[in-house]
Amino acid sequence: MQLIFAEYTFRLDVEEGVGIPQIPVHPIGYNDAEILLRYLGGTAPPDESWKGSLKVNYNIGPGFIGHDSFRKVRMHVHNINKITRIYNVIGTIRGSVEPDRYVILGGHRDSWVFGGIDPTSGASVLQEVVQSFGKLMSRGWRPRRTIIFASWDAEEFGLLGSTEWAEENVKSLQERSVAYINSDSSIEGNYTLRVDCTPLLYQLVYKLTKEISSPDDGFESKSLYESWLEKDPSSENKTLPRINKLGSGSDFEAYFQRLGIASGRVRYTKNRKTDNYSSYPTYHTIYETFELVENFYDPTFKKQLAVAQLRGALVYELADSKIIPFNIQDYAKTLENYATDIYSLSKKYDQQLRDHQVSFESLFSAVKNFSKSASDFHRRLSQVDLNNPTAVRIMNDQLMFLERAFIDPLGLPGRPFYRHVIFAPSSHNKYAGQSFPGIFDALFDIENKADPRSAWKEVKKHISIAAFTIQAAAGTLKEVLE
Amino acid sequence: MQLIFAEYTFRLDVEEGVGIPQIPVHPIGYNDAEILLRYLGGTAPPDESWKGSLKVNYNIGPGFIGHDSFRKVRMHVHNINKITRIYNVIGTIRGSVEPDRYVILGGHRDSWVFGGIDPTSGASVLQEVVQSFGKLMSRGWRPRRTIIFASWDAEEFGLLGSTEWAEENVKSLQERSVAYINSDSSIEGNYTLRVDCTPLLYQLVYKLTKEISSPDDGFESKSLYESWLEKDPSSENKTLPRINKLGSGSDFEAYFQRLGIASGRVRYTKNRKTDNYSSYPTYHTIYETFELVENFYDPTFKKQLAVAQLRGALVYELADSKIIPFNIQDYAKTLENYATDIYSLSKKYDQQLRDHQVSFESLFSAVKNFSKSASDFHRRLSQVDLNNPTAVRIMNDQLMFLERAFIDPLGLPGRPFYRHVIFAPSSHNKYAGQSFPGIFDALFDIENKADPRSAWKEVKKHISIAAFTIQAAAGTLKEVLE
Repeated sequence: MQLIFAEYTFRLDVEEGVGIPQIPVHPIGYNDAEILLRYLGGTAPPDESWKGSLKVNYNIGPGFIGHDSFRKVRMHVHNINKITRIYNVIGTIRGSVEPDRYVILGGHRDSWVFGGIDPTSGASVLQEVVQSFGKLMSRGWRPRRTIIFASWDAEEFGLLGSTEWAEENVKSLQERSVAYINSDSSIEGNYTLRVDCTPLLYQLVYKLTKEISSPDDGFESKSLYESWLEKDPSSENKTLPRINKLGSGSDFEAYFQRLGIASGRVRYTKNRKTDNYSSYPTYHTIYETFELVENFYDPTFKKQLAVAQLRGALVYELADSKIIPFNIQDYAKTLENYATDIYSLSKKYDQQLRDHQVSFESLFSAVKNFSKSASDFHRRLSQVDLNNPTAVRIMNDQLMFLERAFIDPLGLPGRPFYRHVIFAPSSHNKYAGQSFPGIFDALFDIENKADPRSAWKEVKKHISIAAFTIQAAAGTLKEVLE
Repeated sequence: MQLIFAEYTFRLDVEEGVGIPQIPVHPIGYNDAEILLRYLGGTAPPDESWKGSLKVNYNIGPGFIGHDSFRKVRMHVHNINKITRIYNVIGTIRGSVEPDRYVILGGHRDSWVFGGIDPTSGASVLQEVVQSFGKLMSRGWRPRRTIIFASWDAEEFGLLGSTEWAEENVKSLQERSVAYINSDSSIEGNYTLRVDCTPLLYQLVYKLTKEISSPDDGFESKSLYESWLEKDPSSENKTLPRINKLGSGSDFEAYFQRLGIASGRVRYTKNRKTDNYSSYPTYHTIYETFELVENFYDPTFKKQLAVAQLRGALVYELADSKIIPFNIQDYAKTLENYATDIYSLSKKYDQQLRDHQVSFESLFSAVKNFSKSASDFHRRLSQVDLNNPTAVRIMNDQLMFLERAFIDPLGLPGRPFYRHVIFAPSSHNKYAGQSFPGIFDALFDIENKADPRSAWKEVKKHISIAAFTIQAAAGTLKEVLE
């Protein structure tokens, strides 16, 4: 029935679709690219940011230089543009106490070429975690909550599989989902752990990484937490390892940015201080093979094992702990930092803030109220009668719905499906996360806006949306509406 | 804090506001109106629907007829346009078992002039219900769920008080509200009961009206249900009394049409077969006084007592029953009727349906799936272990969230705050309810649309939205996502 139903769905005409490239695009190799770039003529690059690391001028064309100016490049693009069926594979373990509460582990299965790293180093982790839970079940274990394993299709075509499934099940997912853990590539380097997640999960990640052995050379008999902390301490607090904001570029997007389900992703990464490139050099190329992983990235497979242990342990704890292991006080601290950051950024325009009567007071006031509500909540949580199932469920509901409270049903300007008020994929780099994206984007390049009055009004509006949302989220932490 | 916070909120400029009249408006009395209408010249009325019951021509102007054509009317409008503070009065009784589940009884307190009927006949019912619950509490009774009593301000200015409060508490309300019962005017006539409510409440209304004595002459020792059924049987099924769709025009709007909280309103009404006018003759005039109620509408106050008993009993049962007394199979039957209705309406355009390949198959398929899920749900509900608090809460969650599943976060076209896909205030009469409003409005006057292709595409889109929403709602009735 479901399949047939999906095929009845009203669809926009292809011309009305967004995100389909208007210009034919084809990736080419380094050697070919260097030749083309070396002889490119026309305008010089406007500034240094247009230049890469090749020894060429990086002219931006059109046409070639000198006696090659008569040459043209003929490009054959053999893409096939068609509507086709995709397959998500979904497996569930029914929760024994709360079958209507879901913890999701999902990752994609499709790849650009061979997909040796992306996604196979992650898809195999998904398989291994499923195997492990299968073993637990054969010994009679059942999780308290339902676990959903999802192998997504068509991630590389725009996160299609995970997004379709989120849309199809949107009502149930937003009422019932505790968390979404992503299982895309488990390595993009082999130096140390990289974690991007909601602040709700910080404490759980710290706890679990302390229980997992470090796979790093020189850290034998140390924990994953210890090697991670030593190699990549947080910029704000050197006593804690770095955790990043969630951006996008993988299948957690619909779950976190659209639906407001607490989400996280963990993988092994490169050394951010020395390896100053995005992703990894063979990313999405024909050179991403199993041999590359086996010979260079992870010959002992220990890094991928550590990632598998962490992803599996996250799912286990989220699905089986009586009280959902979220910490709301970390969210409060994070909001304080983000509010301070965006306020500092705005101080660049000190005179305009005064001219247009722009105040961040309501935002700071809301964050303060949220912090107090978070403390009160955790005090109540520490006193809850764990033998009273209704009392436990009430607290768990408040934990589960907290992330949802940050969703604005109207979305961000021009981005209706990025609806999280605290986090969004950056408008300038989809892979990166941006805090208070509404305010940030309203401030961006504001000195060059044609109508300063309406531009600053937009800033005020987004400060108000952020303040309202945080205040409303604080309200969901109260036992009874006040 | 809350008050101060609300005052920080970003506000549109007055010129950007919607719903503020562009033409000065002032109600005038019958005598003055008749004189003006009698001498009005200009164009004759285009058809009979423009004519009322006065013995005049109902010309539509401009200017007056014959030797009065030189006359002008000078109108003095003494409205004061200002932003002012309003006051909602909120009282709560904390739920003893599930304090985080809310049953709301709300009605407005402000009036056009003296408000003898609107709202005082309802505001007094709210007070009486509060008094009754106070007595129960003094005997030690506590409801299972939290009861919220709300006396709204500024209803007559655009449902402002109830809407502001719904917006301020939106996150908690949508996660926690079981039902909203409206307490506006308890009479608009004295003939029989009138009920407008979600199909979820039909069975509860039948049950409770059978337990309340009829206040009608000639029905001594009969139940309210019996007099209601005899005087106003349903058009579809003569063995049941009539229940209407919810439209708008009172404070339940934000709760039902925007947030998808199961809602209902009950009052005494006129004889629909003989009294063919809207509301009641003195509606919103200076003649709406206590004397009018006491001398003409309800000299024994028995009608208002019956309404108070029913409103109070609804709140009592919704707040204190272990299982929320909703019936989902009635929703299924109602959806079947509405789908058949809209399909019949579309058959007027049989040729166009074929030309534009418009099919209602997906809608009927979704309704069928919903009906099956509703039956399965009630079978499971009848088997639930009432001594297992988690199992009870799981079923109650599904009952509570069912109405919410009909909400489309993007709203109806041009009406972003009417978000219920099954019901909306009619686009042609805000007081009346319209089923499948998206499809209905897309079909309305479609033969006169400039671009038939895009008009029929809009119809297809809204059939798809309705089918998807009903299918998704059916999904929320399953114990585990399939």
